[in-house]
Amino acid sequence: MPSAYHPLTEEEAVQYVRSKLPGFFPSDAQLFSREIGDGNLNLVFRVVDAATGRSLILKQALPYARVVGESWPLTLDRARIESEALKIQGELAPGLVPRVYHYDPDLALTAMEDCSDHIIMRKGLIARKRYPRFAEHMAEFLARTLFFTSDLYLSPEEKKARVRRFINPEMCKITEDLVFSHPYYDADTNSFNPLIREDVEAIWNDGDLRREVANLKESFMTCGQALIHGDLHTGSIMVTEQDTKVIDPEFSYYGPMGFDIGALLANLFLSYASHEGQTADPGERKSYRQWLLRTAEDVWNGFLERFNRLWDEHVKDEMWSAPGYRDAYILRLLQDSAGFAGCKMMRRVIGLAPVADLETIEPPEVRAVAERQALRIGAQLVLRRGEMRRIGDITDLVRREGGAE
Amino acid sequence: MPSAYHPLTEEEAVQYVRSKLPGFFPSDAQLFSREIGDGNLNLVFRVVDAATGRSLILKQALPYARVVGESWPLTLDRARIESEALKIQGELAPGLVPRVYHYDPDLALTAMEDCSDHIIMRKGLIARKRYPRFAEHMAEFLARTLFFTSDLYLSPEEKKARVRRFINPEMCKITEDLVFSHPYYDADTNSFNPLIREDVEAIWNDGDLRREVANLKESFMTCGQALIHGDLHTGSIMVTEQDTKVIDPEFSYYGPMGFDIGALLANLFLSYASHEGQTADPGERKSYRQWLLRTAEDVWNGFLERFNRLWDEHVKDEMWSAPGYRDAYILRLLQDSAGFAGCKMMRRVIGLAPVADLETIEPPEVRAVAERQALRIGAQLVLRRGEMRRIGDITDLVRREGGAE
Repeated sequence: MPSAYHPLTEEEAVQYVRSKLPGFFPSDAQLFSREIGDGNLNLVFRVVDAATGRSLILKQALPYARVVGESWPLTLDRARIESEALKIQGELAPGLVPRVYHYDPDLALTAMEDCSDHIIMRKGLIARKRYPRFAEHMAEFLARTLFFTSDLYLSPEEKKARVRRFINPEMCKITEDLVFSHPYYDADTNSFNPLIREDVEAIWNDGDLRREVANLKESFMTCGQALIHGDLHTGSIMVTEQDTKVIDPEFSYYGPMGFDIGALLANLFLSYASHEGQTADPGERKSYRQWLLRTAEDVWNGFLERFNRLWDEHVKDEMWSAPGYRDAYILRLLQDSAGFAGCKMMRRVIGLAPVADLETIEPPEVRAVAERQALRIGAQLVLRRGEMRRIGDITDLVRREGGAE
Repeated sequence: MPSAYHPLTEEEAVQYVRSKLPGFFPSDAQLFSREIGDGNLNLVFRVVDAATGRSLILKQALPYARVVGESWPLTLDRARIESEALKIQGELAPGLVPRVYHYDPDLALTAMEDCSDHIIMRKGLIARKRYPRFAEHMAEFLARTLFFTSDLYLSPEEKKARVRRFINPEMCKITEDLVFSHPYYDADTNSFNPLIREDVEAIWNDGDLRREVANLKESFMTCGQALIHGDLHTGSIMVTEQDTKVIDPEFSYYGPMGFDIGALLANLFLSYASHEGQTADPGERKSYRQWLLRTAEDVWNGFLERFNRLWDEHVKDEMWSAPGYRDAYILRLLQDSAGFAGCKMMRRVIGLAPVADLETIEPPEVRAVAERQALRIGAQLVLRRGEMRRIGDITDLVRREGGAE
């Protein structure tokens, strides 16, 4: 840990902004600071000029993580990774991530654009909000950040230099454990609704499923395809009707593209399952579920259209231009995305970090119905990913396994 | 380049050994030094004590590569990578690589065991020598170096730390160009027997083949499975009847395991094809070819036996223990090895760096027959790798495409 490191107080946050970002606020501005993070991994200060309403966020990494009451040390290097990833993503997909104003390695602190007028996407999904531009924005974010950081675009030397800069062992380990391991056996960290124990045990006893999850885990650990966000669930996306911001890329590293696409699909499908319990009215439920699946389709199709265009414009390598290579690449990407989506869904039902979409359903009997749907969809996405040829195959599977009316 | 760097002379090599490895030779020893490298990439000094015959090798990287008359700058960092890889390999597979006595980052120089009583394997193969312990030694080298540097054995943190240390962009670029790109289109660097132009053009026009090579290239560039040697042809192996030393791991990086296994198989199969021209007597040819294919089978089967034993003993991860995962892993490895072997064969016929096995066949008409065999075997190994279920499928393919008597 750099010796200058210490967690800031709200007052120090104001002083910090005045001294380190002198032009941001008028020098005589009256600044207010409030810590608005959940305090588990990071401190998040919102600093506001009362007179103008102008504001910014200071995000400071804490040297430990606090989960289920336990505390374990966690590298501050993730603040560097997050700030560097935000800068790269901001250049590649302008407007779709918060702007970075300043990064301070000693304090593991990033000053960035305040998006407090946005809400966390997951909350919007629980409330059955619709975001007409969300699919288009995420298609743009995914296509551009994945394409331009891959071997399809970068020189091999530049790509490998980035692989090195984004080696991120501690954050990857969290995913390796919580997404790809613990949910598939009786691990201490698991935590699930007792009413679905039989379904969970069926997963633990499904050798085919565990083998396929192992294959996906191996891919997560060995396949350095692009600089991925690494944690692209709907809690890492902030939205308004017209705007979308992807936040918190502290899990960024060079990994399989399908992991980002799959994370996003998984969270749309988790929402799909959750409305089994969240939404009593059959008509409303059906209509919102249709919107969710159409959004998933629009994300993939929009991604594909952009990815193809980028390929046409930028791919120079003789070998990447071999006939049929691109189609095979994209098909593999769809199938990877399905598989990773499946893991992401199952882990949210069985594992350590549940999602509010399901967690807030009462009573537990109703929650269990939605959770079983999520587990079935997740398991089938993993097992049958090799059969997926287009996004419609995936949304059909969700409808079929998710008890569509 | 470190400012202290300069290429040593033979005399300086002696002085260097006296001052930096003071215990190695008696202080009054009469030392002789001779530069025995080919001078294209490295200087190689053999330093001998005339009285006792005791000797060592100083290998010094040059800051450029000289190939086909041209010169391009090349990182001295490869000397660090080579010395670190040799140390790791020496710990994992004792006796199968030269011992490292000393590494000097300023001079990009490694002092190591002298293996001058061994000959380069390729020369032995051209002379139809048989090496009864070669397969066993290479099986041991491959199984232990690949297994113990992979996620199957290392902690995720340690593995990622090694990935970082062995990022090797410049050497990988050479492989990306010369093995996976240039041979498959009309690139300036190519150089082949004019008599096989039609066969080479057929490869350039084979879209399926180019697509599959692109897939293998992508795997080489993205799949960080284990610390591989990266250049494991029979010119990187020194042998006696009883001993085997793998040398020159300056291409080491975290890549697909199958690339090492495939490189070795490819060079046995290139030898197989070469004896079409090297060996006039049908009986001798047949008998030696049988030995070559049996050796390929013994390498794989010996590898498999050891790899399985290591898996039984050391794999602790719940997910790697999922039923069927290991079989799928090993099957993929066999198929990867076949594909990489195919690329390695074709590039030696079409590309920049020919092999003496084929190059020394006269007249060109006879050489062309052997070269066509090598191309056919290589192309089919790439195209049909997905059909390979056991090593016998691969050696059958070689026999079939290689015009076995």
